[in-house]
This record gives sequence, structure tokens and C-alpha cells, in this order.
Amino acid sequence: MMPRSTMSPLTSPETQLSDAAPRPAALSPATLARAALTYLAEPGDPALGALLGICEPAEAVAAIKADMLPGTGPGCGDTPASRAALARALARWRARLPGLPGDADIAAACRDGIRLVCPGDPEWPDPLDQLGPARPYALWLLGDADLRLGCQRSVSMVGSRAATGYGAHVAGEIAADLAERGWVVVSGGAYGVDAAAHRGALAAEGITIAVLACGVDYPYPAGHAELFADIATRGLVISEWPPGRRPGRMRFLIRNRTIAALTCGTVIVEAGERSGALNTARHAADLGKPLMAVPGPVTSAQSAGCHRIIREWGASCVTRAADIIELLSPLTVTDAPGPADGQSLADDRAAAASDPARDDLDADSAQVLDAFPARGAAGTSTIAVEAGVDLDTLLRCLGVLTAYGFIERCDGGWRLRKPG
Amino acid sequence: MMPRSTMSPLTSPETQLSDAAPRPAALSPATLARAALTYLAEPGDPALGALLGICEPAEAVAAIKADMLPGTGPGCGDTPASRAALARALARWRARLPGLPGDADIAAACRDGIRLVCPGDPEWPDPLDQLGPARPYALWLLGDADLRLGCQRSVSMVGSRAATGYGAHVAGEIAADLAERGWVVVSGGAYGVDAAAHRGALAAEGITIAVLACGVDYPYPAGHAELFADIATRGLVISEWPPGRRPGRMRFLIRNRTIAALTCGTVIVEAGERSGALNTARHAADLGKPLMAVPGPVTSAQSAGCHRIIREWGASCVTRAADIIELLSPLTVTDAPGPADGQSLADDRAAAASDPARDDLDADSAQVLDAFPARGAAGTSTIAVEAGVDLDTLLRCLGVLTAYGFIERCDGGWRLRKPG
Repeated sequence: MMPRSTMSPLTSPETQLSDAAPRPAALSPATLARAALTYLAEPGDPALGALLGICEPAEAVAAIKADMLPGTGPGCGDTPASRAALARALARWRARLPGLPGDADIAAACRDGIRLVCPGDPEWPDPLDQLGPARPYALWLLGDADLRLGCQRSVSMVGSRAATGYGAHVAGEIAADLAERGWVVVSGGAYGVDAAAHRGALAAEGITIAVLACGVDYPYPAGHAELFADIATRGLVISEWPPGRRPGRMRFLIRNRTIAALTCGTVIVEAGERSGALNTARHAADLGKPLMAVPGPVTSAQSAGCHRIIREWGASCVTRAADIIELLSPLTVTDAPGPADGQSLADDRAAAASDPARDDLDADSAQVLDAFPARGAAGTSTIAVEAGVDLDTLLRCLGVLTAYGFIERCDGGWRLRKPG
Repeated sequence: MMPRSTMSPLTSPETQLSDAAPRPAALSPATLARAALTYLAEPGDPALGALLGICEPAEAVAAIKADMLPGTGPGCGDTPASRAALARALARWRARLPGLPGDADIAAACRDGIRLVCPGDPEWPDPLDQLGPARPYALWLLGDADLRLGCQRSVSMVGSRAATGYGAHVAGEIAADLAERGWVVVSGGAYGVDAAAHRGALAAEGITIAVLACGVDYPYPAGHAELFADIATRGLVISEWPPGRRPGRMRFLIRNRTIAALTCGTVIVEAGERSGALNTARHAADLGKPLMAVPGPVTSAQSAGCHRIIREWGASCVTRAADIIELLSPLTVTDAPGPADGQSLADDRAAAASDPARDDLDADSAQVLDAFPARGAAGTSTIAVEAGVDLDTLLRCLGVLTAYGFIERCDGGWRLRKPG
């Protein structure tokens, strides 16, 4: 495991503070209710998605405990058929009530770096809302990195568990290159391509997010316990299932939609004709996200799925990190709307001002960005003094600016990234 | 070299007859003129293309010999600039007059299986007319197969001279599979992918066409003399350059447009970033023909060009012959417009009648096709008796039906091909 001092630039100041003081155990009633739902229902349960469309999570939990559905309303339970489906779901969820921890125990599960992020929280990644009623009820996180920031410039890289030497090599190389260019790699926790992608990014001192189909404290496969610990040190291990929950075949498939939804695009590195990675690819395509595949020898069965989705699904054929970044960065500074024809570009800042990403920055981050030297590197304290912000604010802003791709770490500290 | 008895099914009856009797040396004045132009001008010369747009080939030759342009007319030489360009071209062509053989010597060049095919001849492949003014002036052929029929169901397969073991293996396998399914493979004569494609098709007893950038009697590279002889025995070695002409760097590039234009589509097997095969690919794309590429390891520089045209030019990612045939056969019998909804398919012939390809058949070929047993094979004499045609007609029709993909050779003689 990496030393604690290599803290991720995506770490938010709140979580940094919590390293010093014990994390407050008090969770809001809404958070406790969503946590309870992760114990009671499988993620993506359409009945629970429908129920959460007409009532608050706490009401849903109360309804399950009381064995009584909330009153009929538009969108849910307003026909005999849908009421019957909800009644069956209620029985299903109630079957898990004996295993539901009390509120104090749920709060106690948030220890050893484990925490909960719910829809509406500042750290909740908006892209998950694209899943509609199939949106995760909540996410359990292990690690200090900020999930929302981490997903801003992220790529899912998934593939065959039975990767060939070629597949593992290519996954590791591309992930390392993506990490060096400030992109966050997201994958599952399986052997083969998933592990090679995480390891490649970590070797390049990048940030990765592992999305598990079991509790974040449940090392599956067991051989990856150390890998998950490394990932949590620099990035995040996340799950829709509560701590302690075992993985299952269906859970891997349900989990895949989250991997696809979290990221800007999905890359398949090696996949046989029936690989589960193609399920993730399907989710990415259904969500309208860029879908990419790395080709391989046509003589290799492990590349057959990649070639098929290039040919039949229109997946882009990518061979290196630069291809992926080009596809996922349609609006680089060069592509951004420039000054009108015939008008000379007098000031670089004028061009920067027309970059939509820059407009999204909060005031502190914009101030920190302006404090960077045009060329060369600057140390943390230099930047803080120049920007006139305190160290906590600076660390948060460096995370934001890295996530947006404005800056990158280098030998001398930090520097501006070249556009494109 | 293969024994003479394995004569190609695409051999036309005229050329078969000429095997028995010495070929008549008399060439028409128009053919002699076009032959002379192949000696005097480089193929694709835009000035000669323009000149042939306003006068007959014989007039063009006369104009070159007389050093006097024909009168101005629409489309050529009607501005001072274009007249100046034509005058420069005239000087260029006249420089080769000393090397122009007399008519008798041109006719004498048509020996040892060498013959000429010109625009307007029954054997001229119409697709070449898509090249407009860059259309070949004439084609020199070595071999008995019918060029027009051979191109009906044909695929260009080109790639790197410095093919890897992987590229040569894949080219050979796919070419063999294409040949077994009745497709003609067209390529250049280079080492690497070109040679592997020809050899693969020949090993499967298929027909290939080698398009050279030198005379058909000029074995370049010298190491392929035997390969070219094998190709000519079953298929064709063809060229826009007259016998004896040496190859040249520009000639390979000019030749590539002919490879792309002759065929239904082009497959690139291996190509580095600067491979000449990408020039052929560009021609295929410009002509609106299906462009395909076989992927390979992203770690191989010889596959970089293939991956780039898949990603950037929209080339289809193909991994086997079936992928290629699927792309090139948009109208198989299954896809053809069937009977109206609700109408039962009482007779297979009704479905066959709605197949556009069948409608293109001449009366004799349609009659021969109807004489085939629905299942199993039949020998040549059985089919001839059943169809009521003489042997010469039968052989011609078998060539037509093979070219259109209706029939295939098998152990027992000939049989219907399964649709799709």
C-alpha cells in the first residue's frame, strides 16, 4: 500500500479534515434511509425505483417495515397490475428485514474510511441520474478521493477476466498513459483487464475507481485485497451494496450500468464473444456515451468481442490513450468558439475565457488557475501565496483543476497542461 | 505452375477456342491505337484523358505522330492555358515515339497468352469507367480467365510489403476462404500481403487477378515469376503498361486506382502509417466502394494504418471472409424483396425470380441455372443435356453463374450455392 503522504489531489478538504478528527457518526435521516434501502433491495430493482418516484426514501423504508404501501399516486401503484408487482416487491424486501442493521450500526459501518454518498449530496456524481429509476439508492465509498470530481474526466476500462498477455499489457499501458494525462480510470475488480487497468494507472501515480459488485470491505476476488487497498489509498473503491455483502452473478451485471454511467466513455480492451464486458459496453451505448474498443489479433478469441462491437455497434477503434482523450474531449481550447473572423487574438486570456470548462469553475479555483505561471512548474506554497488562498482551499482547488484537466502534477509541483 | 487441365471456370469460350488454333494476329485499328497509347503515355495522364474526351484513340495517336493537336472543341484545349498544357503533353508523348513498336510488332506482342482488352470490348470491366478521364487506355492481360466476369464478385486485398507473420497468415486464410466461397481476389504483385493473398486463394483453387505496375511479362519482383505464372494459369496477370515496361515508384501509385476500381470492395490487411496500401484504400473510399481493414495488435506498427482508417475513415473492421462477403452482398436472396405480407411462399422459384441478380442473367445462363438439381451435385454433361445447350455455351454460362455466385464447383462437378 502506498504511503499516506501521497494523498490524492482529488481529496476534498472535508475528508482531509476528517483524517485528523474522528468522523462524526451522525447520519441524516435521509442518508440512513437510503443506506437501509441498500441492505433491503437489490440495486436497480424497478419496483423500488418506482416507489422512490412517489415517496421519500424514509417513507419507503417505513412502508417496508409496516408492510403497507403508501397511497396510490401517479407513476406508481395506480393500476391493479402495478400494485400487485409492488406487493410482491414488498414481500421480497421484507424478507431481508431481519438482516437490516439498526441506525446506530449503519452509522458504525462508516468507519475505517468507509462512507456513504447519496443523491443530492455535493459529492454525488450527476451522471448517475441518467439511469433514471435504476439510479443507485446510495453509494458506499472506501477512500478519500472526491467521487464527483473523480468522475469529471474519467474513462471506464473493462475487459475479459481471462485476458491474454497482450490484453493485460495494453490495458496497463493505456491506463498509465490516461493517468499521466490526468484522467481517472474506472473499472471493476476482476482479474485480467480490470486489474491491469488499475495497476497501470496506479503505477503512473494516477487515480482509479474500482466499482465492486459486493461490499467495499469484501475483497473479491480475495487475491485482490492488496490491490483494493492501494486503490482506496489514492482513489476509491465503491459499491451499491452495503459493507459485508457478498458478490453474485447478477450483481456483476447490475453493477456494470454504474461503471458505464459514472464515466465520460467506456473502453473495452479484450472481450470474448460472450464476455460480461460487452454488457458494460451495451450500457454505455444505451446511455449515449462514447463506446470504444481496442483491437487485437483477429486470431485471438479474446479480441472477437472488441472487433464485433467496432463493426456492428459502431464502437470507435482506439489504440492508445491519445485516441481515447481525443474522442472524449470534443471541446478543447482549440476547438472552442474563438474570436470572430478577422479579429486578432490579442490575449490568451480572451481565448481561455471562451472555454466553457473555465466558465464552470468556482471563484476560488479560477483564482488558483490564474496564479499558475504561464510556463514551468510551481510548488504548492508558491501557488497559495500568489492566489491568496489558504492551504485547504488550495488543495480543493487543485483537485477541481486537475479534474477539469487544466493542470497536472510534475516534478516541480504543478503546472498548466497544454491544451489538446 | 498448375497443369493446364485445371482451366478456370471463368474462361470464356472464345479464349478456349483460341487455345486450339493460333490466335489471329489482326487487331482492329482502334485496338492498335489504344495499345500505342499505352506505349506513349503514362496511365492516368490527365492531358490524354482530356484528349480522348474529344477525339478517337486513332486520332490521338495521329495527332501525336503529326505533332499537331486536333481542332479546339468543348472540354479540351479551348483556353490558352489548356492548349499550353496539351502542347507540353504532346512533347512528352512524342519523346516516346522512337520506342513505339509498329502495328505488326504490337500485334506480335499478343503471344504466349498475352492479349489486349479495351474499353467497349465485351471483356472490358465496366467499373473501370468510374475512373472517368483517368480510366486505363487499355489493359494488357496474361491468362485465359474472363476479366469482366472475374471482377463481378471480387475483392481487392492489399497491404504491407513488410508483412508480419500475422499479416501474411491472416491474408492467406481470408483469401482462401473468399476463394472457397466463389470470390475472386485482386491484388498487386508485391511481397508480403499481396503475395500471401494470391497464394491463399490459389491454394483453395480459387481465381486471383494480379494488377502489376509493369509489363505483364516483366516479373517484378523477380522472386515472384513463378507466382505470376501460377496466377496466369488460373486467373489473370494484368497491367496498363505494355509488355516489357519496367515498374516505377509513381507507377505503383497510379496502378492502385485500378485495383480499387476493378473490385466490389477493398480490404487492407496490414499497413503501416505510410503504407502504399492506404493509397489504394483512399481510391476505394473516393470511388464510394466499401473499404475494410483487418485489425491487429495495437503494439504492431504494421497494423497502425488499418486501425487509423477504421477510426478516421470509417473503414469497416473485418476479421474473416464472412464479414467481407456480408458487407459486399447487400442483396442476398434472403434480403431480396419477398412476396407481400400474408402471402405464402408457394414456390422457391417465385423467390428466386425476385432476386435482381437473377434478372441480370442472359437467357442461356438462366436456362443452365434452372437445369441444376435443387440438392447435390451434377456433372458438366448432365447439366448440358438437361439445359439443352452445347458445351461451349455451357462453359460460358458456368462462368457467368459462378461469377454471380449462383453455383460453385464441388467434388461431384457443380452445385447450387446456399444463399447467404
